[in-house]
Amino acid sequence: MKEKESKESKEFTEYWYHQTLGLRVKIKDILHSEQSKYQKIDVYDTEGIGKLLTLNGKTMVSEIDEFIYHEIMAHVPCAVARKNSKVLIIGGGDGGVVREFAKHSDIETIDLVEIDERVIAVSKKYFPQCTSALDDPRVKIHARDGAEFIGEKKNYYDIIIVDSTDPEDFALGLFTKEFYSKIHQALNEDGIMMAQTENPILDEFGIKQFYDNLREVFPVVESFSAPIIIYPGVYWSFAFASKRYRGTDLNQDNSKRARLVQIEKNCKWYNSNWHVGAFALSNLHRKQVGM
Amino acid sequence: MKEKESKESKEFTEYWYHQTLGLRVKIKDILHSEQSKYQKIDVYDTEGIGKLLTLNGKTMVSEIDEFIYHEIMAHVPCAVARKNSKVLIIGGGDGGVVREFAKHSDIETIDLVEIDERVIAVSKKYFPQCTSALDDPRVKIHARDGAEFIGEKKNYYDIIIVDSTDPEDFALGLFTKEFYSKIHQALNEDGIMMAQTENPILDEFGIKQFYDNLREVFPVVESFSAPIIIYPGVYWSFAFASKRYRGTDLNQDNSKRARLVQIEKNCKWYNSNWHVGAFALSNLHRKQVGM
Repeated sequence: MKEKESKESKEFTEYWYHQTLGLRVKIKDILHSEQSKYQKIDVYDTEGIGKLLTLNGKTMVSEIDEFIYHEIMAHVPCAVARKNSKVLIIGGGDGGVVREFAKHSDIETIDLVEIDERVIAVSKKYFPQCTSALDDPRVKIHARDGAEFIGEKKNYYDIIIVDSTDPEDFALGLFTKEFYSKIHQALNEDGIMMAQTENPILDEFGIKQFYDNLREVFPVVESFSAPIIIYPGVYWSFAFASKRYRGTDLNQDNSKRARLVQIEKNCKWYNSNWHVGAFALSNLHRKQVGM
Repeated sequence: MKEKESKESKEFTEYWYHQTLGLRVKIKDILHSEQSKYQKIDVYDTEGIGKLLTLNGKTMVSEIDEFIYHEIMAHVPCAVARKNSKVLIIGGGDGGVVREFAKHSDIETIDLVEIDERVIAVSKKYFPQCTSALDDPRVKIHARDGAEFIGEKKNYYDIIIVDSTDPEDFALGLFTKEFYSKIHQALNEDGIMMAQTENPILDEFGIKQFYDNLREVFPVVESFSAPIIIYPGVYWSFAFASKRYRGTDLNQDNSKRARLVQIEKNCKWYNSNWHVGAFALSNLHRKQVGM
């Protein structure tokens, strides 16, 4: 029994799809484990995917594929936005999305609103490649509730990113019509919002409701996908909403294009062709988001 | 111990990425298990994804997502092909790709070359929704080695599909320059070939070599992706090669377009917009296939 137990302890499993499927991850070591005020935070050293951050037992960030999620969350809205001087990120305490936004020299302010400052502290220690831009003078960190913070700003931001956990517990409020209305108010007329919206093939959470909520608030609501290897079922969807621009309306301003082309060259995942293609949805994806 | 063992026996796991990651599938029952001349064939009744076919312990077909793989393998080449009267499928004994090709009324012949006829028999029993077109009079089943069969035809097929298992054991020959040369010879001047080429993010098998092999033979070699939930890492790549047409050169002939539009309407995954978008690759995908 002893050896079996020790063997079993060298794996992390996240079950999903109503507990019928699971991702097994062989681990070398548990580097960190704590119960913060909001959630259980664990960091594993894995055999195949580098360091892995989990929140309440759900995979959040791995070294092997963090660049995909982080690059697209920043560069997709920046490529469309007419101006991207003021950015707000709700959630995202690992710092990866901030790192990607910080590559855009025309950004003046990045507000990072992370309810759980322990996520930031743990990420700084174990994922320094993600948190590298948190000390950028343009970045302001607010350890507050995103829904509360957002209510204070009107007609202010160019881009708002909702980098949330699953629509459960304290993150559930980040998928409601009320929250999206506050985002709408906080965005200026050219403003863009993006949010992670789960796996639409397995669709455990009924994501059409989140898109319906968005459609009640924003005139333009679209969806696209990208693969996140450590997330349940990998095929991940993202909502893009704005007051006037579509997700494929890339900003054609010459100096802005030139800046983006330079950034793309150093991206591991993102480029503008991929960006436009990712918005061309399968019949299933369209159906699941009600399009 | 007894209860633990019985609990454990109610899961199937496929490990991948050098055995560091695995997909757990909770199962209700093992419906079938045999060692054929070529491989171990198992069928599970699972808790979440319906019936699941595995070959040598590797997931092949599940009821929940089989339509994605099967639809794209047939409709992507049909949408580009100038003529699709003669089709060859190498592998694919589960019948799913045949089912999708059979929806095209302009197809005259579908040769299915499956080395292991036990895969066909087991699929007929447990996946009748996949094998429904195997009795179509246009379909000819050949229980033979694909590499051997292909050498006998010259300048004959409009479309050839390599629906193989991983590049290991008896399927390894289906990824070589020699095999691709035979496919090139068997295709007519307008001909198109497609093949599954593994997960390019994790890239356990070094897929650039397969694309290099294709490029030595075909003037046009492209890649696209689609998600297969039960495959390792889900993000799956497919090679598209031809003597003259690109993967995004959709046939604009009116009657052919009209036929495809009708088929698309009844597809769960495929549509032409998705098709074109899927060929817009990320930087990582481009790098991994050497583009």
